[in-house]
Amino acid sequence: MPDFFDVVQRQRAYRAFEPGEVPDDLLNQVLDAATFAPSAENKQPWVFVVVKAGPTRKKIAELMRRAWEGGARDYEQGRIDGRLLADVERGATGGIGAAPVIVVVCGDSSDSLEQTLPSSVFPAVQNMLLAATALGLGSALTTLATTMTKDLAEILQLPEHVKPMAVVPLGWPARRLGPPKRTPFKEKAHKDSYGRRW
Amino acid sequence: MPDFFDVVQRQRAYRAFEPGEVPDDLLNQVLDAATFAPSAENKQPWVFVVVKAGPTRKKIAELMRRAWEGGARDYEQGRIDGRLLADVERGATGGIGAAPVIVVVCGDSSDSLEQTLPSSVFPAVQNMLLAATALGLGSALTTLATTMTKDLAEILQLPEHVKPMAVVPLGWPARRLGPPKRTPFKEKAHKDSYGRRW
Repeated sequence: MPDFFDVVQRQRAYRAFEPGEVPDDLLNQVLDAATFAPSAENKQPWVFVVVKAGPTRKKIAELMRRAWEGGARDYEQGRIDGRLLADVERGATGGIGAAPVIVVVCGDSSDSLEQTLPSSVFPAVQNMLLAATALGLGSALTTLATTMTKDLAEILQLPEHVKPMAVVPLGWPARRLGPPKRTPFKEKAHKDSYGRRW
Repeated sequence: MPDFFDVVQRQRAYRAFEPGEVPDDLLNQVLDAATFAPSAENKQPWVFVVVKAGPTRKKIAELMRRAWEGGARDYEQGRIDGRLLADVERGATGGIGAAPVIVVVCGDSSDSLEQTLPSSVFPAVQNMLLAATALGLGSALTTLATTMTKDLAEILQLPEHVKPMAVVPLGWPARRLGPPKRTPFKEKAHKDSYGRRW
């Protein structure tokens, strides 16, 4: 029984994976956990395209590389430290494509306002990432490939009303990562109004 | 030690609370859990305005009521079933304002692109909701009051670059809710491309 707070504190962004397969029953537990997240009007507008087929994963990986090399890398240089940049670069240019499973999480706008999709879909994504952590799987929330919406929609044959919002690799971590670097919550919290320290 | 999957499956939207106070050490655990969520570039752009002061909570509750009565109720009628509508109505017209703590979660756009804020803030909100569940607290992800951005920003004295994104009540549940109604994940999952059943 994985302890809740332990899972929360161990969650990290994994961008390098071992080649081993992920059994479907683990994937099912990850997807099932996602569906317990809240959503506006309880419309549950999440759509999971679970990509295991090699050629499709390769196309997604190629798209990610194009987005990275076509502008994202230049944008990130100077904004994030060299170590994180190198890790993101490795992920965007092959690491994430090497995961045995890539779940593209989309929002269905056919019965939900588009502005409510983020608050209705990213909580479900977070449940996925936590469930993966609880099961020993590596995962990451990436959005780079979703900036090339048309190409990604074409690869996955998404209809117009299904919007890709996150690309989540799942697999066995190449190596375990230590605790994440975070600013303590007290520096992010305010008491009653902005500017009053909690 | 709360079991991770049990916490995930017990999370519900609570919109009615007992009057009892929530000790700060529990609030701190909820806020701390939030900071372990992922964010674009690890910028951690979340801002938590933790409102315990009665007059401020009252102003937020009043704003929520105005948003509800000024259009949201009319919009929701016919879109959601009568039971959920009644529950949301009770929450929007007093139930949420009666929570002893309201956390307004914001996104800081000063060092993050605005389009990356949702994927960087809602996972942290989900961690909050799950942590509250693990601790026996009721909580909910609401966005109604954030549609009245200017008024909410004025109440909380938010600077221009801090965008309110969610209003999360925290408190002891008036009554425990049973398991949530959800569509099974298999109906939301596709294999390799859209339209192929998982």
